[in-house]
Amino acid sequence: MKYPTGVKRNANQHMHGLNDKSKDKSNTDYSARGMTLEKDLDVTNTYYLNSDIAVIHKKPTPIQIVHVDYPARNRAKIDEAYFKTPSTSDFNGIYRGKYIDFEAKETRNKTRFPMINIHEHQVDHMHDCESHGGIVFLIVRFTAYGETFVYPFKEFYKHWMIFKQGGRKSIPYADIKESSITVPIRLNPRVDYLAAVDELFFK
Amino acid sequence: MKYPTGVKRNANQHMHGLNDKSKDKSNTDYSARGMTLEKDLDVTNTYYLNSDIAVIHKKPTPIQIVHVDYPARNRAKIDEAYFKTPSTSDFNGIYRGKYIDFEAKETRNKTRFPMINIHEHQVDHMHDCESHGGIVFLIVRFTAYGETFVYPFKEFYKHWMIFKQGGRKSIPYADIKESSITVPIRLNPRVDYLAAVDELFFK
Repeated sequence: MKYPTGVKRNANQHMHGLNDKSKDKSNTDYSARGMTLEKDLDVTNTYYLNSDIAVIHKKPTPIQIVHVDYPARNRAKIDEAYFKTPSTSDFNGIYRGKYIDFEAKETRNKTRFPMINIHEHQVDHMHDCESHGGIVFLIVRFTAYGETFVYPFKEFYKHWMIFKQGGRKSIPYADIKESSITVPIRLNPRVDYLAAVDELFFK
Repeated sequence: MKYPTGVKRNANQHMHGLNDKSKDKSNTDYSARGMTLEKDLDVTNTYYLNSDIAVIHKKPTPIQIVHVDYPARNRAKIDEAYFKTPSTSDFNGIYRGKYIDFEAKETRNKTRFPMINIHEHQVDHMHDCESHGGIVFLIVRFTAYGETFVYPFKEFYKHWMIFKQGGRKSIPYADIKESSITVPIRLNPRVDYLAAVDELFFK
């Protein structure tokens, strides 16, 4: 499927990476369902850690530091730095003795998940992790529906390979929904994605 | 063992964290044996990745971003940011299907490894990873001897608990050497620490 000229950019603007709040002010909007996916995952991972269920952390945003100022005896101030393209996914850790690795994205798009904000290095990384025996998936939220999916990487990768061979640049919403487990928003843990992982990877 | 007044600070200055090149110019010194431990691990991890042996990455340095400038159509420039205390160890990934987690430190100290530059959060994190079934260790280099050790976390933790209970603030060099496997510096892989991991954790 080709996008009409000019529409592709708009589609891109509706996809929000989670690894960089500063880039996109819309990440601070709160949907009708509550917090952003990044915030939901943060409180969920804290719950998992404190409940001794899993040790999963978001990696820091990769930054290229160009200059650091040392004003008198104060702490070091970085006064010139730039965002770098991430070479891995944003989240990893250990669950039930297994290595776990995932990327989390939310989109306002109602009909499809555009590939454009997933970096090739991240896909390669997730592919490597899976081939080494890790549990790998994406967490995709369609904010228009307030739906959060745990989407196995191997399902994503089928679409990615089609995309890389010149095929469609997005995954239809219905395809994701069919291959995923939906994670409800609850009080605590807020987004219990490991229940979906149990279902998808441990049965 | 108590340090004489004034010596403690010097001991600290001889301990170099690997997660932040900008903080310490001495990280750019090259020892007689070659590169810094951080650089050695970087090329080694790249070798492991390209040879399909393991997927292990150093996490980005955690930064608190305070202000980002968007000059015209140029890329975003971070013009105010600060280093944050890391809440996890610096390295993790997957090897032989297992979650692997480690911290790497080099010291110029000839007789002991001071605890002072290991953050409590990092120790707690490594303890959590080990209790969930991960392979956890420290890589410690004594630059004075050009010796690099893979030191199992559980050995480190014994000394850490003594330290937290008010005991000695460092680990004697001889104790580390006795409980570790020494990793030679080679051409490729430069620091084959996974050979030591095989020996310590897979036999």
